[in-house]
Amino acid sequence: MTPLVVTEEQLRSAVRMDADALAVVEDAFTWLAQGKVTMPPVLHVDVEAGPGEVDIKTAYVDGLTSFAVKVASGFFGNAKLGLPTGSGMMIVLSAETGFCEAVLLDNGYLTDLRTALAGAVAAKHLAPDAVDAVGVIGAGVQARYQVEALQLVRDFNSVNVFARNRSQAEEYATDMRDRLEKPVVVSETPAALLAASQLVVTTTPAREPVLRSDWIHPGLHITAMGSDHPAKRELDPQILSSADVLVADRLSQSVRIGELRDADDSVTSRALELGEITSGAEPGRTDPEQVTVCDLTGLGVQDTAIATYALSRLEERR
Amino acid sequence: MTPLVVTEEQLRSAVRMDADALAVVEDAFTWLAQGKVTMPPVLHVDVEAGPGEVDIKTAYVDGLTSFAVKVASGFFGNAKLGLPTGSGMMIVLSAETGFCEAVLLDNGYLTDLRTALAGAVAAKHLAPDAVDAVGVIGAGVQARYQVEALQLVRDFNSVNVFARNRSQAEEYATDMRDRLEKPVVVSETPAALLAASQLVVTTTPAREPVLRSDWIHPGLHITAMGSDHPAKRELDPQILSSADVLVADRLSQSVRIGELRDADDSVTSRALELGEITSGAEPGRTDPEQVTVCDLTGLGVQDTAIATYALSRLEERR
Repeated sequence: MTPLVVTEEQLRSAVRMDADALAVVEDAFTWLAQGKVTMPPVLHVDVEAGPGEVDIKTAYVDGLTSFAVKVASGFFGNAKLGLPTGSGMMIVLSAETGFCEAVLLDNGYLTDLRTALAGAVAAKHLAPDAVDAVGVIGAGVQARYQVEALQLVRDFNSVNVFARNRSQAEEYATDMRDRLEKPVVVSETPAALLAASQLVVTTTPAREPVLRSDWIHPGLHITAMGSDHPAKRELDPQILSSADVLVADRLSQSVRIGELRDADDSVTSRALELGEITSGAEPGRTDPEQVTVCDLTGLGVQDTAIATYALSRLEERR
Repeated sequence: MTPLVVTEEQLRSAVRMDADALAVVEDAFTWLAQGKVTMPPVLHVDVEAGPGEVDIKTAYVDGLTSFAVKVASGFFGNAKLGLPTGSGMMIVLSAETGFCEAVLLDNGYLTDLRTALAGAVAAKHLAPDAVDAVGVIGAGVQARYQVEALQLVRDFNSVNVFARNRSQAEEYATDMRDRLEKPVVVSETPAALLAASQLVVTTTPAREPVLRSDWIHPGLHITAMGSDHPAKRELDPQILSSADVLVADRLSQSVRIGELRDADDSVTSRALELGEITSGAEPGRTDPEQVTVCDLTGLGVQDTAIATYALSRLEERR
């Protein structure tokens, strides 16, 4: 009855950003569309002292013998203390007895991974086949992970980055140039970034839109993964209403804490869930000239998928 | 950044059912009444495979440097496997950075403790001063803990127990006689138990009332701690409407998953919260002949209180 306690280091060596992990996260969306998932709304706590916030997510998947509870935090004063803003851990429970099987002290690594892999799943089905340049708004941890994950699904030649803090963007370009072995260029404006990119990922905690609809061009795909709170928004609502294909990881969550907040029925009624596409029930992009948009808010089922996969990988090694 | 991992054994030796722990749980209710607590609704997941259920509770208390997230499960097929139905663990997070400070692998011990201590807090303020006999409905873990905790607040002479399963009631009587060094008698019926007791605790997962209003007598106090789900109910609603003093740990939760579910406005409007009494804003029992009732559904703030207390005790010892 004593659970396995797993460190971040062990998890980093067991689970990497690769095709297997991508398939696991893609399955998670399919399970959701197939009605196999029991996923209560996110439990959110505001912590005045930080100030910070904690989100607790969970999902039980019919057919899996265990499931995860994920506790993720974002504390905005941490940077001043030289600490990362975000942290987190997961608990894996038996779906048969409720007992705790494992405590995954991942410090948010599995969340970073499954979040980036969801971006790759969206791009796999929605981005144009031919992507010359990827654009990324923001220069933090997810800006790195997302672009790395995109390598699993598209063979792009260069990266454009824009961040409000120019020196962070420069630092990102330097780091990622080495990591990707591709040109990484700092864009002067978000508009210039959009014009130069076919596949764009927004990774900011913005409360005002960072992308405007008059900057959109045919053949563009945008994944917005920053918003996960009623006060956050990265996209001009006009981008959603004019998109040819509009997708959310989960509509009920996107209208509450994502980009589809306050969207008209005319918008939400034609929005798809990503799992409808991964399961094959609906097509993704059907034309190279379409504009496609995917809003990712982050789902408990992704946590259950990556956590149970991580545990199975650790067990294989023992 | 590596959290302390604490075992059940360490927690059992650090925190016991005593006056200090009682004061900690009493404080939790007071903090709630003083508006110091941010406590989102319980996150509940039904797990078909078990079948079972998992409840996740949390509460941040203004002024505390850390807070708990508690994951508690109840899986109904465990008994057949020779395993306990309930399990659980707590995570303690820093309220300043969001980082995980400790993982308390208590297997539900701290929950059992804080639940029983809440019963003692209710009895302290609501039971008559003179209690000859305590009555308990149910013969499980909480039936034991609740009666033990009541020793902290009332000097009673004997215990009556009723359980649908007679042999479990007999076993309870045998165990508790030794433990309490007092007579423990099996009652033939709930009615007989009520007639013979001044302070009664119901500890069942009943879905139909186990206590009827025509069995109530002047001077009785009842604590109902079993119901924590919309389908559960231990008390005839008439008991609530006729009580002289009606109290819930938290009204908004009791009307959703506790005994006050479906109660009329006339009932809910005169119900108090336990913290209003512990804080001194409202009196508890004011007359030995009053009938008093307290519904306990279990609050995240109790978890934060007991978990942070447990950690402070462990730190003192190091």
